[in-house]
Amino acid sequence: MNKEEYFLEKYIKPCTEVSELFPQEIGDDCAVIRSSSDLLVSTDSSIEGVHFPANLNPYYIAYRSIAIAASDILAMGSYPDGYLLSISHPQPSDEWFNDFSKGILEFNKTHDTKLVGGDLSKGELNICVTVFGRAMQNIIKRSDAKENDNIYISNKLGLGAAGHKSFLKDNLSMPNQYMKPQLISKEVIFELNTFINSAIDVSDGLLLDLKRICKLSGKGAELLVSKKLIFNDYEDLIAGDDYVLLFTANDNNDEQITALLPQSKMIGKITKEKKLQVNDLDGKEINFDTFGWDSFKT
Amino acid sequence: MNKEEYFLEKYIKPCTEVSELFPQEIGDDCAVIRSSSDLLVSTDSSIEGVHFPANLNPYYIAYRSIAIAASDILAMGSYPDGYLLSISHPQPSDEWFNDFSKGILEFNKTHDTKLVGGDLSKGELNICVTVFGRAMQNIIKRSDAKENDNIYISNKLGLGAAGHKSFLKDNLSMPNQYMKPQLISKEVIFELNTFINSAIDVSDGLLLDLKRICKLSGKGAELLVSKKLIFNDYEDLIAGDDYVLLFTANDNNDEQITALLPQSKMIGKITKEKKLQVNDLDGKEINFDTFGWDSFKT
Repeated sequence: MNKEEYFLEKYIKPCTEVSELFPQEIGDDCAVIRSSSDLLVSTDSSIEGVHFPANLNPYYIAYRSIAIAASDILAMGSYPDGYLLSISHPQPSDEWFNDFSKGILEFNKTHDTKLVGGDLSKGELNICVTVFGRAMQNIIKRSDAKENDNIYISNKLGLGAAGHKSFLKDNLSMPNQYMKPQLISKEVIFELNTFINSAIDVSDGLLLDLKRICKLSGKGAELLVSKKLIFNDYEDLIAGDDYVLLFTANDNNDEQITALLPQSKMIGKITKEKKLQVNDLDGKEINFDTFGWDSFKT
Repeated sequence: MNKEEYFLEKYIKPCTEVSELFPQEIGDDCAVIRSSSDLLVSTDSSIEGVHFPANLNPYYIAYRSIAIAASDILAMGSYPDGYLLSISHPQPSDEWFNDFSKGILEFNKTHDTKLVGGDLSKGELNICVTVFGRAMQNIIKRSDAKENDNIYISNKLGLGAAGHKSFLKDNLSMPNQYMKPQLISKEVIFELNTFINSAIDVSDGLLLDLKRICKLSGKGAELLVSKKLIFNDYEDLIAGDDYVLLFTANDNNDEQITALLPQSKMIGKITKEKKLQVNDLDGKEINFDTFGWDSFKT
């Protein structure tokens, strides 16, 4: 048995489980998905030194990498049913895989999600996650924001960035939103799906991600930023790493949305004019040199 | 627009195309698969310095990485319909992406396959490919080899290793099986699917991959190795990188298999005894210290 097989057999296989949707046991060339619905699929790589710090415990590396990828399924109004892992590691050990597999199991238990396959190669630490979710009633796109839609975020901004800073400062062992991003539950997204027009997850910063919705919808936006929306300061609007859901909906649905997501905040309106304007509560425009995160920025 | 968006928009988007099976345009959080069949899915990372040399032209990096992943779908008796790319690159340039995108287009044209989504991050050069294929009549597993099955390879062994050596020696610009692996066509796999019992692709060396079939099927194998099966020497049996198909089938189907795959070779028999025995044409047993490739072996 070579090293790849040893680690996959000992640590990854016990994290998998066959089900009606994923009927094939791990260990063959492919996984099988038995679905009669449309499938949403997305792939995301989390890389040491770029997306997470080198000293992050492998438990959180696993949980965070899977959560970040899964967040893309929520951003299209559905829920992650399962995922594949392609792990690159320079020198895997039993200790590393033991912690990493605990993070997988914790994610699966919390989200009722299955790991359905994976591989392991030698390389810089890179966790490439491909996630699958059956489409719910509507497939929610970035491009379907309507003029006059309310703009919402599912939770306040800046918890990711604050969590990152705390981790770097104190090398925390307690989880926070950076180390262990919380996602919307299956029950909530199932209901929310019918009330919203467009959505994206805030991975690269609110302003950058809102610009993406505006661009694809051919619209603009006016934001009204209050201290209740942000954890720390205005920098939270461009900080990213929050993995909250940014979505737009007709004002008629406001009551249902607030009932479903009590933590959510209405932060502005979609406009006909293709411009992104950000005002503080005094109506004063806030300007930004940059709109969000870029992994290539030096 | 940040660098990720710039390169994806300029070079990756033109390689994509909506279709009935993949109806969602690239640029949202997820791709959509509209399939009523079971889906086969597999993920594979190709890493610079591990799976391909640093000076390989990006055209071949693309073609080879996608082909290697696609080979896993063929190994379960189906055909790659589409794939996602998660690209990590330390310092992407227009020149690199220009060549890389030509490799994507060439693969798609040759295999009638669609690129349906992708992302780009900063990191060591790592091409993570997740590939999808609709299941054909049978899902061919590693675990279904039967006693007395003939064992076949779809083409002779060693062309990958020989191609690798030639490339390293002469920095070839002409393609070979290492740089541009040839795969079985859709028409052939569609027919072959009904004649075979088990299969795997020879990625890590014939003996190692045959052992995997034997282990999961609870069987053994006797191989009879002739010079016609190998390109160079017996080392080709453990060299890997060939991406030929290794499969087993009832002897009754031999004629149809040979007609479908004239290059294929019958190389032995599946046995009840759980042992892998390799003989040369004089009946002399050949012994190996190792059975195949391991990316962690130093």
